[in-house]
Amino acid sequence: MSTSEHVDNISTLIRESQRDALIDLLMSAAREGRVSDLVQDLTTREVHELADLLGEDDFGELLGEMEPGDAAQLLTRLAVRDAADVLEAMDPDDAADVVGAFDEDQANRFLFEMEPVEAAELRQLLSYPPDTAGGRMTPAFIAISPDLRADQAVVALRQLSEEAETIYYVYVTDSEDHLIGVLSLRGLVLSPPETPVRNVMVEDVVTVPVDADQEVAAQTLTDYGLLAVPVVDDRGRLQGIITSDDVSDIIEQETTEDIERLGGSAPLEEPYLRARPIHLVKKRIGWLLILFLAQAYTGTVLAFYEDTLEAVTALVFFMPLLIGTGGNAGSQVVTTIVRAMAVGDVVFRDILKIVWKELQTGIMLGVAMAVAVFARSLMLGVGVDVGIVVGLTILAIVIWAVTVGAILPLVLRQLKVDPAVVSAPFIATLVDGTGLLIYFSIAGVVLGLN
Amino acid sequence: MSTSEHVDNISTLIRESQRDALIDLLMSAAREGRVSDLVQDLTTREVHELADLLGEDDFGELLGEMEPGDAAQLLTRLAVRDAADVLEAMDPDDAADVVGAFDEDQANRFLFEMEPVEAAELRQLLSYPPDTAGGRMTPAFIAISPDLRADQAVVALRQLSEEAETIYYVYVTDSEDHLIGVLSLRGLVLSPPETPVRNVMVEDVVTVPVDADQEVAAQTLTDYGLLAVPVVDDRGRLQGIITSDDVSDIIEQETTEDIERLGGSAPLEEPYLRARPIHLVKKRIGWLLILFLAQAYTGTVLAFYEDTLEAVTALVFFMPLLIGTGGNAGSQVVTTIVRAMAVGDVVFRDILKIVWKELQTGIMLGVAMAVAVFARSLMLGVGVDVGIVVGLTILAIVIWAVTVGAILPLVLRQLKVDPAVVSAPFIATLVDGTGLLIYFSIAGVVLGLN
Repeated sequence: MSTSEHVDNISTLIRESQRDALIDLLMSAAREGRVSDLVQDLTTREVHELADLLGEDDFGELLGEMEPGDAAQLLTRLAVRDAADVLEAMDPDDAADVVGAFDEDQANRFLFEMEPVEAAELRQLLSYPPDTAGGRMTPAFIAISPDLRADQAVVALRQLSEEAETIYYVYVTDSEDHLIGVLSLRGLVLSPPETPVRNVMVEDVVTVPVDADQEVAAQTLTDYGLLAVPVVDDRGRLQGIITSDDVSDIIEQETTEDIERLGGSAPLEEPYLRARPIHLVKKRIGWLLILFLAQAYTGTVLAFYEDTLEAVTALVFFMPLLIGTGGNAGSQVVTTIVRAMAVGDVVFRDILKIVWKELQTGIMLGVAMAVAVFARSLMLGVGVDVGIVVGLTILAIVIWAVTVGAILPLVLRQLKVDPAVVSAPFIATLVDGTGLLIYFSIAGVVLGLN
Repeated sequence: MSTSEHVDNISTLIRESQRDALIDLLMSAAREGRVSDLVQDLTTREVHELADLLGEDDFGELLGEMEPGDAAQLLTRLAVRDAADVLEAMDPDDAADVVGAFDEDQANRFLFEMEPVEAAELRQLLSYPPDTAGGRMTPAFIAISPDLRADQAVVALRQLSEEAETIYYVYVTDSEDHLIGVLSLRGLVLSPPETPVRNVMVEDVVTVPVDADQEVAAQTLTDYGLLAVPVVDDRGRLQGIITSDDVSDIIEQETTEDIERLGGSAPLEEPYLRARPIHLVKKRIGWLLILFLAQAYTGTVLAFYEDTLEAVTALVFFMPLLIGTGGNAGSQVVTTIVRAMAVGDVVFRDILKIVWKELQTGIMLGVAMAVAVFARSLMLGVGVDVGIVVGLTILAIVIWAVTVGAILPLVLRQLKVDPAVVSAPFIATLVDGTGLLIYFSIAGVVLGLN
């Protein structure tokens, strides 16, 4: 079904006040990540009717499923009063993302209309950068006193469960909010009713600092197999929790950044279809120019060997093939090593093992490619001399490319540079110039030039 | 701490029978994914002592944290009897992965020594390919009859919780194992004790077919925000569950495959450091040769334009720069589009929007690069004529590269080919040959050759 059919459909459902069908439609769109497409073309009148039909809670949940920027845009079409009510009904972490998408004046207008307590909660969340644990966490956790009994804790849970984002963990805090233990719902249900919470709680709680990178939080959840991880400030006070359903978002976001870097451009912060061309240009032109400058010296190399080129034009025929193969071999290694580092399979101290492995691999690949390029030279009828030159060159270039491709990402990581900047284009560019030097040096010796 | 220090340490702890310290050391190594490194150099005697010290349960859990191949190797160092006991104590899905790493004869030897019921369970799991829902699932779920009351269900839960991998969901099945509903622990705890299970269960259960791709299962868990998803056979009978802690494994594995394809090689199925060089060669040589063949015709193009090359050698100076820039611009687009498809941001029907966006982007990028390459030509002193040729060429090549880079992944996906095969090397290779044709055509017209 195309987007415009969707819109007809949603407009019809709004006009006919079909609440249940609307919720079904919106929920299935949410699972496909296409809610924004569905609602962006609604008239302001329809948006108002939709908000009325769904009520604050469901409308708020709908906004939570959208990209924060799109949700913010939708929200501005409601009266400020109504928008504030919706924000109050939303999960605080989602609400903070939406408010964070406004400029400061607009954000303050909405926060001013909200209940003071809830506005303060949002201001607190907004004070952390969005890609940190603080920016990701929700304050909607359940915390109880260590002096309750297990059965009282279950009662407290029943009362608090409405507001909380997870009830699978109950945190135990002292009177000053210091996190002193954790209970799992599983543990609570399985332990005798009269036991004091203090005796069943786990004291050695795994936490994440509020200023940690969001990736650290996701990694902690995964490594320890948790459903939620508590976020604490520098004095050990419980500030919020990050739940397991944030993990796939975080992994997706961080992996997308890695992949775009490997493709040789700066990561987009918004969905591709929303990015304007000038924005795409800004993300790409930097690397394109850097790679251009890095490659420009190939011209100097070729100008230096002008006499050789004029003497043996056939050498030119193989230039793209030789440097291209070097770039390809290098890019295979770079992507493998960058990925192996990202998932923790290799670290810097493995460097000698890696180089040795790649050297052996490079020799085998290089010999195979040498046979292939020698055969190609016979087909082009350029003579056995040139065939030997290109065969030796491709062997040397492949070995050189895999070695550089293996070492560079490891060294960059050691220098605290994101190894994903050693993109396929980067290694290809690097191999282009050095590959030509190798080529003409071998040609000079074998053909007895210079 | 280096690996060899670790081994000294673990050997010492085994010799001194320090069970708790051993478990601490092994658990922290497990979180870093380095258990295999830690135990691979132990003597057979030490492995025996370690198994005795830890007991079946903890030793089995240790194996579950390792790569299946490594775990299998460790297991062969125990007596078959003892190994079978450990396998029985393990989570069935982990045990199946380990047994799956043996060859058939070895696997049968272990299965023969195990309790018949547990062996049958493993044989069943082993019958599904490892990257399907069936291959990922565990049969360790809790299923109850719809005729129990909520409080009886909680009692059943207490009894069954030991064996189950999650107690957050309780599945309701009829006498023939058909899945008819699901209860969340949350729902059970929050509902009155006397309510029949039938009345509190959710009947509309989200399931995954046993032969679905593991990626579908992970996506379902994420989209619906579930902690576990039930896996059913074609007659709707409950076969197993996949829990949320499998999701990050699955995403990691599938993303790694995508990234390696984008880098121009076939995905590795094992950790990089365990892959032997000949294995790396096998994964890479295919694409390297395909790209070689695709690029070989650049030689034909250049041979065809031999006269032009001899007349204006300066054209050669810019060849690597022009085709390199085209490859870089194309690879930026390809990685962005492939990733946007993988996360569901774009689909085939967006193709016109995408091409229009990339055309505008390409024109802006191309103009910028044309200015840069014209400046470079002045520096090399090759004359304004050649400067105009290379300027026009880079503009045309960049526009061409971004357009092809945008269309190809979308079309391939439509043809059911994994779009990640349109790697950065692939697009660079494609642009090399066509770029040279563009170059010499423009040169022919502007310089009045041919």
